[in-house]
Amino acid sequence: MPDFTLSCPIPLTTYPHVLMAHGGGGRLMRNLIQQLFAAAFDPQSDTDSAVLAVSGSRLAFTTDSFVVTPLFFPGGDIGSMAVHGTVNDLAMSGATPHSLSAAFILEEGLPMETLWRVVESMAAAARACGVRIVTGDTKVVERGKADGLYINTSGIGFFEHALVLEPASIRAGDAILLSGDIGRHGMAIMSSREGLQFESDITSDSAPVAGEVQALLGGGIQLRCLRDLTRGGLASALVEISLSARARLGLTESAIQTRQDVRAACEILGLDPLYVANEGRFVAFLPADQADQAISILPAASIIGHVERLGEPLVTMESPIGGSRIIDLLSGEQLPRIC
Amino acid sequence: MPDFTLSCPIPLTTYPHVLMAHGGGGRLMRNLIQQLFAAAFDPQSDTDSAVLAVSGSRLAFTTDSFVVTPLFFPGGDIGSMAVHGTVNDLAMSGATPHSLSAAFILEEGLPMETLWRVVESMAAAARACGVRIVTGDTKVVERGKADGLYINTSGIGFFEHALVLEPASIRAGDAILLSGDIGRHGMAIMSSREGLQFESDITSDSAPVAGEVQALLGGGIQLRCLRDLTRGGLASALVEISLSARARLGLTESAIQTRQDVRAACEILGLDPLYVANEGRFVAFLPADQADQAISILPAASIIGHVERLGEPLVTMESPIGGSRIIDLLSGEQLPRIC
Repeated sequence: MPDFTLSCPIPLTTYPHVLMAHGGGGRLMRNLIQQLFAAAFDPQSDTDSAVLAVSGSRLAFTTDSFVVTPLFFPGGDIGSMAVHGTVNDLAMSGATPHSLSAAFILEEGLPMETLWRVVESMAAAARACGVRIVTGDTKVVERGKADGLYINTSGIGFFEHALVLEPASIRAGDAILLSGDIGRHGMAIMSSREGLQFESDITSDSAPVAGEVQALLGGGIQLRCLRDLTRGGLASALVEISLSARARLGLTESAIQTRQDVRAACEILGLDPLYVANEGRFVAFLPADQADQAISILPAASIIGHVERLGEPLVTMESPIGGSRIIDLLSGEQLPRIC
Repeated sequence: MPDFTLSCPIPLTTYPHVLMAHGGGGRLMRNLIQQLFAAAFDPQSDTDSAVLAVSGSRLAFTTDSFVVTPLFFPGGDIGSMAVHGTVNDLAMSGATPHSLSAAFILEEGLPMETLWRVVESMAAAARACGVRIVTGDTKVVERGKADGLYINTSGIGFFEHALVLEPASIRAGDAILLSGDIGRHGMAIMSSREGLQFESDITSDSAPVAGEVQALLGGGIQLRCLRDLTRGGLASALVEISLSARARLGLTESAIQTRQDVRAACEILGLDPLYVANEGRFVAFLPADQADQAISILPAASIIGHVERLGEPLVTMESPIGGSRIIDLLSGEQLPRIC
């Protein structure tokens, strides 16, 4: 048998074991994906969806597992989130979501009524998104494993336009649009997990964003690249894009909307909302001269920055009092198991 | 909030909780899928793959999670099995497998070298099957969850012929072909799990069967229906088909090949090889007048029975001494966590 300790592309003296941070949406996850998974497999795009050329047309194909705890939280549950997450991954590639699969890993002893509640939530979310759940799988593991249930949803979608939405399509001068306020999903999970009472109820932003993307495309916006702001939040998404596109991005802190209650909750817990996960927010890179038009299509959105130049991967943010700081990846997510 | 205990389609007084048998490939899993999942979702075929009509052509889409324990066993591992299982599900629909996704749920503390070994095994299996792993996902859960790792592979494939392979295509008189000997996967898992020493080493039959299906199709065999013999084994697969097609199937026990060591191991453990899982075997329903030709294409296969008539779901098996017995579903799998 070959010696896998010799060939392993992750340095085993530094990382002999998988850490929680390897799933956290930060630097360790990026390294694991790029050094280990991408080295062995054939990733077909620099986004969450593979884009496959099939008999003259293009097909998007994506997969996502959901291990969020607790299963139910303010504003959503693991079922609706499993539908939204995969629909959103397809939408970020520019594809129109078509069909999903649903694979369940169930824990022995899970109340049947809980399973039904999750399944009904998935079905309702799929109807609302205009996608069908067409195939599935069921496994059961012993008590103590799987925290009730884990769900994998994979999805396929098709393209109704010729745009190629990926970091490599970004151009100097492009505007960066943020589709809404940030930080709610992570803080909603946190409050329900820890039983924290904040000054007001924070609900998750978990929602499908395919409609917003279709509205931008339908309005003639020449989108360059989209990314949803899940694990690692806004900051990690922009750093990832900056690294992939080798683009220098300049952000304006005051343009990034964070609700006052979310900001207060983050402060109490010592978290930076820039890195807190969202499940219904995305950034869009688009030509600067279409920025006003894009905002008129999505009034809740704002322009939070620009692509300053290409050639150098760097993200900086200007504070309201004029200072500038560099935005980088964290090693992992501040909050584990949020999706 | 609606009362989910009232609407739950599974009788909660009988099954208030999920049992191991709900994932076992027998009657309880069938009920869970048909009564609960199919009621809420939109399954697109009576096989493991959904078949979708897309701009004039047909696409197969399937998903499978793998929770096998142990991760490595004689003749395979969770990685190669995750590729073979999904490739085989696509092949059973008659599609040519094209691309796979790979989603990992990793347990904190998993040795990185073990992950690499599994990933390398997946990559090698994918190359051998002529499919690409094009997209993926990584989650990490705390120690004590997930038994090292769980894998979901979803897959898409395309059709190079016009046949519709499903139970409804079966005709009275059709021959039933079994592609090889049965029972090896389950007994290989059992021997490695329990540290049992049988009279000889039993290795899993885990293998892709897409090539065998292509050979049958290429040879002009007018296949009606295919099914791989995973959880629940040969018996459960045939009963499922019989129920879906409302077909009476007559089997000849002496035509079903079981290796002597597998039979002996089953006897020691009190298991019936008819219900033991396989990962590289399938049954094919085909016109009786093409049976000889099919066997000449797949010399390791045998004709194990026929469709006696339509209208009545029943599976009977004739013993070597002439008796006949009814083959039915077990409540679950005899061996949990075999895939």
